Amino acid sequence: MSDGIRDFIDEHRADLLADLDQWLRIPGISAQPDRHGDVRRSAEWFADAARRTGFPTVEIWDDGAWLPAVYAEWPSGDADAPTVLVYAHHDVQPVDPLELWHTDPFDPTIDGDLLRARGASDDKGQLLFHLLGLRAHLAATGRSTPAVNLKFIVEGEEESGSPHFEELLAKYRNRLACDVVVVTDTGMVAADVPSTVTGMRGMVAATVHLHGPDLDLHSGVFGGAVPNPAAAVARLVAALHDENGKVQVPGFYDDVLELTDAERELFARVPDDDSEFLKVAQSRALHGEDGYSTLERLGARPTAEVNGIGGGYQGAGHKTIVPSDAFVKLSFRLVADQDPSKIIKGVEQFVSQHTPDGITASVEWEGAGVRACIVPLGTPAYTRLTDAISAAFDGAAVLPTREGGSGPEAGLQLAVAAPLVFLGVGLPDDQIHAPNEKVTLSMLFKGAEAAARLWSGYAALGKDALRSA
Amino acid sequence: MSDGIRDFIDEHRADLLADLDQWLRIPGISAQPDRHGDVRRSAEWFADAARRTGFPTVEIWDDGAWLPAVYAEWPSGDADAPTVLVYAHHDVQPVDPLELWHTDPFDPTIDGDLLRARGASDDKGQLLFHLLGLRAHLAATGRSTPAVNLKFIVEGEEESGSPHFEELLAKYRNRLACDVVVVTDTGMVAADVPSTVTGMRGMVAATVHLHGPDLDLHSGVFGGAVPNPAAAVARLVAALHDENGKVQVPGFYDDVLELTDAERELFARVPDDDSEFLKVAQSRALHGEDGYSTLERLGARPTAEVNGIGGGYQGAGHKTIVPSDAFVKLSFRLVADQDPSKIIKGVEQFVSQHTPDGITASVEWEGAGVRACIVPLGTPAYTRLTDAISAAFDGAAVLPTREGGSGPEAGLQLAVAAPLVFLGVGLPDDQIHAPNEKVTLSMLFKGAEAAARLWSGYAALGKDALRSA
Repeated sequence: MSDGIRDFIDEHRADLLADLDQWLRIPGISAQPDRHGDVRRSAEWFADAARRTGFPTVEIWDDGAWLPAVYAEWPSGDADAPTVLVYAHHDVQPVDPLELWHTDPFDPTIDGDLLRARGASDDKGQLLFHLLGLRAHLAATGRSTPAVNLKFIVEGEEESGSPHFEELLAKYRNRLACDVVVVTDTGMVAADVPSTVTGMRGMVAATVHLHGPDLDLHSGVFGGAVPNPAAAVARLVAALHDENGKVQVPGFYDDVLELTDAERELFARVPDDDSEFLKVAQSRALHGEDGYSTLERLGARPTAEVNGIGGGYQGAGHKTIVPSDAFVKLSFRLVADQDPSKIIKGVEQFVSQHTPDGITASVEWEGAGVRACIVPLGTPAYTRLTDAISAAFDGAAVLPTREGGSGPEAGLQLAVAAPLVFLGVGLPDDQIHAPNEKVTLSMLFKGAEAAARLWSGYAALGKDALRSA
Repeated sequence: MSDGIRDFIDEHRADLLADLDQWLRIPGISAQPDRHGDVRRSAEWFADAARRTGFPTVEIWDDGAWLPAVYAEWPSGDADAPTVLVYAHHDVQPVDPLELWHTDPFDPTIDGDLLRARGASDDKGQLLFHLLGLRAHLAATGRSTPAVNLKFIVEGEEESGSPHFEELLAKYRNRLACDVVVVTDTGMVAADVPSTVTGMRGMVAATVHLHGPDLDLHSGVFGGAVPNPAAAVARLVAALHDENGKVQVPGFYDDVLELTDAERELFARVPDDDSEFLKVAQSRALHGEDGYSTLERLGARPTAEVNGIGGGYQGAGHKTIVPSDAFVKLSFRLVADQDPSKIIKGVEQFVSQHTPDGITASVEWEGAGVRACIVPLGTPAYTRLTDAISAAFDGAAVLPTREGGSGPEAGLQLAVAAPLVFLGVGLPDDQIHAPNEKVTLSMLFKGAEAAARLWSGYAALGKDALRSA
């Protein structure tokens, strides 16, 4: 296509790089209270960038319990223009263990087509492609306002599990009203395989505490005659899966929406290279529920995962004790149509069934959990999205995938009651949440192009068609 | 008996209390390098006390890799007098967690018949009863030297697992030559149930490290499709025991000397009060190998115990990762005639059998392990011991018990090739190795009386009879 969009982006690449270099230097780690000043600076930086791009309304929302979020709005001026709400986040993950980073996580370093820094892919790079994409959209259409009413909601607590996002949604529901939500916080299968997420897993997470004797006991004097909570926590975890990798929590699979044959066929088309997956995971084997491919295990199947386990002596050498306490941190990724509250009840039942005599168990939940979300294939909102992505990838087919992770998207969709689609250009080896996070710059430029085209596509569709199933 | 021994002890109780008050103030924690100066002060304090009691030869042995040990020797002067070697230790356990102590662990506090301080029972109080007992022995017999050749070897590293004791034994084997070893580092069933230990368990201990993916992975992006080392360590630990509490390490029970019916009958006579045991253990249930009493489980059966387990996120809240690493610290208490080197091989085989694809395991052993040791009942050395204890307890029968713990005694016996007996007056609720360690003062005075009588008993027996089976 020679509508000028790609040319504009190519000519203004340096602007995106300059923005990245500034913003990525701000260590806005929401999980660390000593970084909350930086989370605010990060919000202010993006607010300025949005104003600079032309948004007439830019606000920092910090009037709730939450860390500063940024809201930006740019009306189209056209009567029937649909309203698009872009969701992303500006906070970043912690950087521990720092010694595993090859470069300073907050000193963005370009290496060919890669840019390394905390937040490069998750999620600052992706938010910034929108600003460039929007300028390309205006330049190519010759408009002084976007063809759609554009709203951005940029959260500051996503990496901490969005603990106050429901509260923010409740408070600002009217401001956030829209006809479609475009989530920009995900990725594609590979640099040459454009794809879009069509589902994200939900999650519930808990710490299970097991308490045995009221003090650490000498294992010579007492060992072999009293229950050991560290052994008990191990048996509880071992009982979580059967030999086929099925989760043994009562009722766990009752509400799971099984994949249809048609969906499995689409999944199978994704060039799911297990050896590449293992390389990215730096793992020496696959492991999971029998009867499903890696992609299906990650996107369409619920899991029970041990995030941490502990109890007794942790130091060097040995301390021969029967420990008094042990714990395990478990998270359960959920798929449609599992109900977090039913899973929570099932896990509590499981824990109580696997707590032996003489051990007391308590389960501490991280909030009420998050539902999975699903994007129906073939809707107008979905088709215009895949058209825009395809154009940015020179006409390649755009495959549907599912995201294994969980986020506030399900709650957002519920709050605004509008279709939701995913435009994200991260790659599987971006090492988000790990040392040496990076982003592929050419993916950001393609994201900018897709966004520029998407606003025209949605405008051409019109408000009512956009909302239709 | 009105031979004056008990009167002497009663009249000199204050001396023992004054000694305790001085020595227990020295925090000689062998496990903590920053306390090694105190370990030396502790050795010097005991050396002075031995000189003051009359020992003509007192040496501090610090010419090896070990922390200072004290050696004291007092020849009888009688031609046929047997030589007795008393083994004990002067170092103490760490005091963490300090906040659980009701009094300062190094400010000895008397409360009626109890004295609270780190080391009060394990092992300083028990060593000090010997000094008072020896003075009572001299006073009652009117001798200026003991009736037996007395040697004391007082180790400074027992609470760190006696890592250099074999080396010390090899170097000083000739100096330590003796006809019987009296170990003073154990306890009795109850204040009104005199008993003596007739076996101690051996031990091997290891840390098993499991390594999965080479980095912590996002559990949403990767969870459910790669092996999780924290889950794997849990399954490994869960497989250690079957549903009857039998240890599943290959060959684990092959060499176990089963209890005879006669021994089980003797064990059954010990008023083994499970509810008292639970109270001391501050545990709400018993748990162990099916078909054995608590005393049998502790003294005569081998165990596999989890001393610590860890992996993944340990902090507050949640971090949704598939961790890269996990570990478990295991100790195996051994009984006669298990061979530590065979058990080590069996555990390595077990670990390798229970390491799933994609996980690599390594096993780090704490030294070569310690064999169990056994005291045959009814030998002259044993009978004179129980006579002496019985006299101190007004003629009560002295029951044989077994100690669940492990120590350097087996190696010591091997080195000196002499019978070994146990004279110890700790009580099950002394909370050794735990906060609020205490000793019962009247038990120390009874220990002093038993020791005073034992030296006369062994002298009367003579060297050859003492060594006979």
